[in-house]
Amino acid sequence: MSAISFEILRQDKETHARLGLIKTRRGDIETPYLVPVATMGSVRALGSDDLHSLGVQCTLANTYHLHLNPGDELIARFGGLHRFMGFDRPMFTDSGGFQAFSLGFAREHNISKIGNIFPQDYRKKYDDREDEKEMPKAANKENLTKITDEGISFKSLSDGAWHFLNAEKSMKIQSNLGTDIIMAFDECTSPLSDYDYTKKAMQRTHNWAEESIRYHDKNQALYGIIQGGWFDDLRKESTQAITEKPFDGIAIGGSLGNSKQDMHQVLDWTVPRLDDDRPRHLLGIGEIDDIFECVARGIDTFDCVSPTRIARRGSLLLSPQAGGSQENKFHINIKNLQFKEDCRPIDTNCSCSTCRTYSRAYLRHLYVSRELSYFRLATLHNLHFMLRFMEEIRESLRTGTFAQMKDKWLKEI
Amino acid sequence: MSAISFEILRQDKETHARLGLIKTRRGDIETPYLVPVATMGSVRALGSDDLHSLGVQCTLANTYHLHLNPGDELIARFGGLHRFMGFDRPMFTDSGGFQAFSLGFAREHNISKIGNIFPQDYRKKYDDREDEKEMPKAANKENLTKITDEGISFKSLSDGAWHFLNAEKSMKIQSNLGTDIIMAFDECTSPLSDYDYTKKAMQRTHNWAEESIRYHDKNQALYGIIQGGWFDDLRKESTQAITEKPFDGIAIGGSLGNSKQDMHQVLDWTVPRLDDDRPRHLLGIGEIDDIFECVARGIDTFDCVSPTRIARRGSLLLSPQAGGSQENKFHINIKNLQFKEDCRPIDTNCSCSTCRTYSRAYLRHLYVSRELSYFRLATLHNLHFMLRFMEEIRESLRTGTFAQMKDKWLKEI
Repeated sequence: MSAISFEILRQDKETHARLGLIKTRRGDIETPYLVPVATMGSVRALGSDDLHSLGVQCTLANTYHLHLNPGDELIARFGGLHRFMGFDRPMFTDSGGFQAFSLGFAREHNISKIGNIFPQDYRKKYDDREDEKEMPKAANKENLTKITDEGISFKSLSDGAWHFLNAEKSMKIQSNLGTDIIMAFDECTSPLSDYDYTKKAMQRTHNWAEESIRYHDKNQALYGIIQGGWFDDLRKESTQAITEKPFDGIAIGGSLGNSKQDMHQVLDWTVPRLDDDRPRHLLGIGEIDDIFECVARGIDTFDCVSPTRIARRGSLLLSPQAGGSQENKFHINIKNLQFKEDCRPIDTNCSCSTCRTYSRAYLRHLYVSRELSYFRLATLHNLHFMLRFMEEIRESLRTGTFAQMKDKWLKEI
Repeated sequence: MSAISFEILRQDKETHARLGLIKTRRGDIETPYLVPVATMGSVRALGSDDLHSLGVQCTLANTYHLHLNPGDELIARFGGLHRFMGFDRPMFTDSGGFQAFSLGFAREHNISKIGNIFPQDYRKKYDDREDEKEMPKAANKENLTKITDEGISFKSLSDGAWHFLNAEKSMKIQSNLGTDIIMAFDECTSPLSDYDYTKKAMQRTHNWAEESIRYHDKNQALYGIIQGGWFDDLRKESTQAITEKPFDGIAIGGSLGNSKQDMHQVLDWTVPRLDDDRPRHLLGIGEIDDIFECVARGIDTFDCVSPTRIARRGSLLLSPQAGGSQENKFHINIKNLQFKEDCRPIDTNCSCSTCRTYSRAYLRHLYVSRELSYFRLATLHNLHFMLRFMEEIRESLRTGTFAQMKDKWLKEI
């Protein structure tokens, strides 16, 4: 008896996209959906009142970080993460395996999940910290992980102590957190890993998948994670190994190659081999063009820190009606001087509380003046924007106009 | 025809405290009231939606800082500060004269408005900036003002340029901001200023008071500011000079001596000489014990950054019912280890949204993890706390139990 159920409400005729519904005991998730990230048990800059008023259907928190602070056992004593953070809707947790990459190879080689697309700000991205100063400078390039077949040892950034995670422990932590959809313990490899290493890591991941199934809390829905890097045969092997296990859902993780095209390739190797009856999650991806491409390939849910992080750095999302395009990455940078006297809302097409109340000039003033209120108002806009964007995608699937919507957003200039 | 009206609803029998009502075209202010400070046009960490849901009756913004950024003329083109910041209730502005002190003598000598009570963190307090790093280190002790009978020149911290303010210009800026209650231009002296200097500054302030009356926008209510430092005869002279002018209200500013007792002394020299028919504002004061003492001496309104600033630094206010006392300054420090597993709200007696939703343990987790959401949740509590505290004071005046309330809060331990 699964802790969730999944139903495909409509299969798109022109693409592999599907309109779906994940039912959990804490409520439904309409898919395709971009899950807002609450790394430390808080969607950065927002309160749970904001999440509820935005209509956020679910969030995703970080197993590794919450294990360290404030501790999953403490959270269990508080009745679980939902109660602790005051959010009563479904929640995902990752397994901690991604930190094998983000705290390990990625730090050492200064790269991102998709190869070298954003190498220059990777360090800022690695764990969604507000800024770099929180990371000891001397340790910037230190590999903070040790990986064996038994599990992963992590060196904590806060106190330098080593912590060990394996599948059993990851399942125990996620059980303590009491979230609704949890991830099997895995090793996320780097785009720079060679074939042999990626294969070894994949085999470990498959073993850990078995252990995760054995040890996981049966009140929680467990997703298996497909690894295999950017290698056709490994992805296929991993897809088969994971899908033949009794997981409640399938996640695609790990290195997705060196470009967005590589990422599409990984999905093309993987998704067509998945059965239709389980929900599919793509880990750590969620920009607008990515979402179109991945929904078209049959992905149901995503999680990504991008909308909230770029908000904090001044990038505010813009719809095509308001001038957003692939060229400007669908955003304006509010710190630019051109917005100093701009009395328009961020996006004239947006109905979020920020756009209903404030001008670009005011938001720029707050940003330039380093007012704390900026972070929340900007985050509210970007999250509202992405939630409405996903709603528009679902509506297009409902009405059979997904391809037209994609054309409208991604049209060449 | 004054832009405001003021009515005393009830005069306390045992003290000089009074229950009052200031009516403005943008709404009423029930007094005694502690006006939340929105230095840069934002109550730090909050949106105007928060101000409205807290029931904030009015706010106070900073003339000097808004003149520099984003500029009062820009704000005027946006229809005034209310529209710019999305807050439609009454607003105060100070005149910029306080910055003669805060950017001048106070920086040079590292002191606060009330002498040396908090010298150690004065630099952090001087202008309510989030932290010191925003102030160029080399300039920490530089006097950034030049004062003559004509006005005050300020050196901007952001670009090093000099800016000149006088009464006419201060009135013009405040007119551009379009606030409801404005302050006459004054020079705020230091507790370290000697008699001769304080007298000279006071005489300047009186001349500028005349000029402020001449130049001010008659749609705005103008308060005169009594100066005179910690000198009996100067305070009396200033009280007479200011009260005999046709101001809409009276503010008490400037150096208030070297201790809280000195501050009471200043009020005792001043307030008994005021007529009853105008509202009285005490500038920059607003801790709990201060408010009791000053309300008892006949002050109607206060403004103070303390409740919001201490929230950001981890100090969360506590009522006597929940263990707050003069000894612990009516707050807990949430970063303390003792709150790591504390499942209680900050204050079991508080009905704010933070106390209704979150535990001390969760707030500590956010604080320790440097989550941005902490600042808003903490600020919401402290502001709600102070608003309810002022409401309780008004209620005690309504029912003739002010002295009992004061005893309950300030009882010896």
